[in-house]
Amino acid sequence: MSGKNAFYAQSGGVTAVINASGCGVIETARKYKDKIGKVYAGRNGIIGALTEDLIDTSFESDEAIAALRHTPSGAFGSCRYKLKGLDVSKREYDRLMEVFKAHDIGYFFYNGGGDSADTCHKVSQLGEKMGFPIQAIHVPKTVDNDLPITDNCPGFGSVAKYIAVSTREASYDVRSMSKTSTKIFVIEVMGRHAGWIAAAGGLAADAENDIPIIILFPEVEFNQEKFLAAVKAKVEKYDYCTIVVSEGCHHPDGRFLAEQGTKDAFGHAQLGGAAPVVANMIKDAHGYKFHWAVADYLQRAARHLASKSDVEQAYAMGKAAVEFAVAGENAIMPTVVRKSSSPYVWEVGKAPLSEVANVEKMMPKEFISEDGYGITDACREYLVPLIQGEEYPPYNNGMPSYVTLKNTPIEKKLPEFTL
Amino acid sequence: MSGKNAFYAQSGGVTAVINASGCGVIETARKYKDKIGKVYAGRNGIIGALTEDLIDTSFESDEAIAALRHTPSGAFGSCRYKLKGLDVSKREYDRLMEVFKAHDIGYFFYNGGGDSADTCHKVSQLGEKMGFPIQAIHVPKTVDNDLPITDNCPGFGSVAKYIAVSTREASYDVRSMSKTSTKIFVIEVMGRHAGWIAAAGGLAADAENDIPIIILFPEVEFNQEKFLAAVKAKVEKYDYCTIVVSEGCHHPDGRFLAEQGTKDAFGHAQLGGAAPVVANMIKDAHGYKFHWAVADYLQRAARHLASKSDVEQAYAMGKAAVEFAVAGENAIMPTVVRKSSSPYVWEVGKAPLSEVANVEKMMPKEFISEDGYGITDACREYLVPLIQGEEYPPYNNGMPSYVTLKNTPIEKKLPEFTL
Repeated sequence: MSGKNAFYAQSGGVTAVINASGCGVIETARKYKDKIGKVYAGRNGIIGALTEDLIDTSFESDEAIAALRHTPSGAFGSCRYKLKGLDVSKREYDRLMEVFKAHDIGYFFYNGGGDSADTCHKVSQLGEKMGFPIQAIHVPKTVDNDLPITDNCPGFGSVAKYIAVSTREASYDVRSMSKTSTKIFVIEVMGRHAGWIAAAGGLAADAENDIPIIILFPEVEFNQEKFLAAVKAKVEKYDYCTIVVSEGCHHPDGRFLAEQGTKDAFGHAQLGGAAPVVANMIKDAHGYKFHWAVADYLQRAARHLASKSDVEQAYAMGKAAVEFAVAGENAIMPTVVRKSSSPYVWEVGKAPLSEVANVEKMMPKEFISEDGYGITDACREYLVPLIQGEEYPPYNNGMPSYVTLKNTPIEKKLPEFTL
Repeated sequence: MSGKNAFYAQSGGVTAVINASGCGVIETARKYKDKIGKVYAGRNGIIGALTEDLIDTSFESDEAIAALRHTPSGAFGSCRYKLKGLDVSKREYDRLMEVFKAHDIGYFFYNGGGDSADTCHKVSQLGEKMGFPIQAIHVPKTVDNDLPITDNCPGFGSVAKYIAVSTREASYDVRSMSKTSTKIFVIEVMGRHAGWIAAAGGLAADAENDIPIIILFPEVEFNQEKFLAAVKAKVEKYDYCTIVVSEGCHHPDGRFLAEQGTKDAFGHAQLGGAAPVVANMIKDAHGYKFHWAVADYLQRAARHLASKSDVEQAYAMGKAAVEFAVAGENAIMPTVVRKSSSPYVWEVGKAPLSEVANVEKMMPKEFISEDGYGITDACREYLVPLIQGEEYPPYNNGMPSYVTLKNTPIEKKLPEFTL
């Protein structure tokens, strides 16, 4: 006899490996047929649960589910939708309970970052507060790497690898051009609050690659005069300089670098990214020719360059979530526990959601070099294991074979619900 | 007894595979020890020849030269420096002759695009016009894919692959987010005059990947009203849309999209790229949330995702250049001759430099779909072979192992020369 059905959904910004976690959840659930019935995926995260828009993953072949491991993005759709507290929006929790009851759902797997951990925590409390038995397990995911307790977050390692590799490649390019052309390359990276991704740009340089890199962290208040002097010093020594600027880099008064009071031809405020602002600032001060790039979604979608350790951990988190659930756990999140950096050894741990929800892990101060523009050896020791190994997707005719699932909806049983 | 020495240099914008051509030149020259002495590389292209700044590649190990095959950028430095006609700048040609004589150089291999082919052609005429025996062979390279006669240009295939893959990955990402967040993704690509690279974005969609893509080609005058209507139609059907905009896309009056008359806080004209302009235009008209990326150097430096056929052709062009030279040829460029698209079969041909220099190959009109926003089957048939296969660089500790050569200069024999 099979057990309760499971709900799985993806939340927040998607990553190159969130589907690997989904793969881990579904493949593992399929192995526990005695304890878990079907896995229903929420179309567009928790919205799928609220609107009873559930996808029956049993219609997907084992091959299609296996292909999730190498497919970037969120295969079931994600959402930016935060449930409020039980006291404020009881209507939503009542609805969730109705949907879960209607479809015999006893397991809730939510795959996301800090906000989603909070949602998952609230769902885990349904049982206690509303007398409805549900086990809620959070599956960690975020390129921002800002979840507490876990050593790192699935999704981050692959972005870090992409930024480190791209920064090295572009730096080699500029180095070739600097004699008569470009001397400055600026790459803008994600990370509004924490500089984890920006820090990864520092990995472009190492003992065999003496590349001049200046990193502009969100943790360090921007000082234009000091920055321009640092750039000049690098160009005088190397004839070129690479700048990695976090989208969260800001002036002492809190204004992001990207907010330059720029207006377009119609007088609208123009949001153009931090990279062109930094590049033009250098040009104005020193006259150096520049190029700039904004990686944006390319960095978090770049499954073609995923870190093997990241893919493995993403899968392991999904697998562990199901194993914890069948072992009777509730209100927890599987974590990555680092046992050793070199060689890199890690294992699966767990953290109570009460300690995860609404806690943001910042980058330690000792990861940023004294001048504020680089990474320390401690930071390097932390980051290097996370970009270890390559796990390439299969290619067909020159292009990666990513899977698009059938996403067959189940039959609805309840009246409509307005969000 | 060994023959004359060879000069090799890299010119113009570098690529992910120009060093593979350099590898082909040097490895092949090392096999013809009876006919070719040393290979001297010009530091920073032709400038190295003019300033007698020559690198003795014989100090590089076979392993280091082999590693050029998988190293992006220009290992000897490149330049943007165009020699004028013999009539105008005889001083420069006299100097080249002096340098070549001083170092017993009888072979001139120049690795670049259209401008460099012109330089190479002029050098090939030195023999005739100035009584100095030199064989000049041009090695084709350009991400712009705009050299005539050759079916395609080494460097383009890898950029095409990078843009096609990145566009597919980012489109998957946006598709996941469109319900509650981003509906529009804009990626800006290189190509000021021709839409070859933009066209590659169209490969992101195929029979298994029904992705709504609108391409803004430099060949098609921008029509804002029609474009906005096309975007709206895609979003109404798919809930999202990806736009690939060429940096060369322009208004009917010739102004690039990026030139919006935007001023920064100090009143300076702000050059912010076409992508944010297009994204903001859509937001203003339809209110759709957007993200945008500017790949810039990342696209042409992305050796981590190089096309295998591109790497092979880049190497083959360098190899053929040397083989043509030892066979007594002068004033030619090796070419790629396509024999069949499916299966992809090509061979090495040759073209006289008189027919290559200063001729720009545009994209055929029949490669652009009738509405001006997509690629045709003919275009797809042309492009797909060029992105075939993966040839990954070796990795060490999570990062690609690219080589930085010793670049040992030879002893100068001549007085200084002012550029």
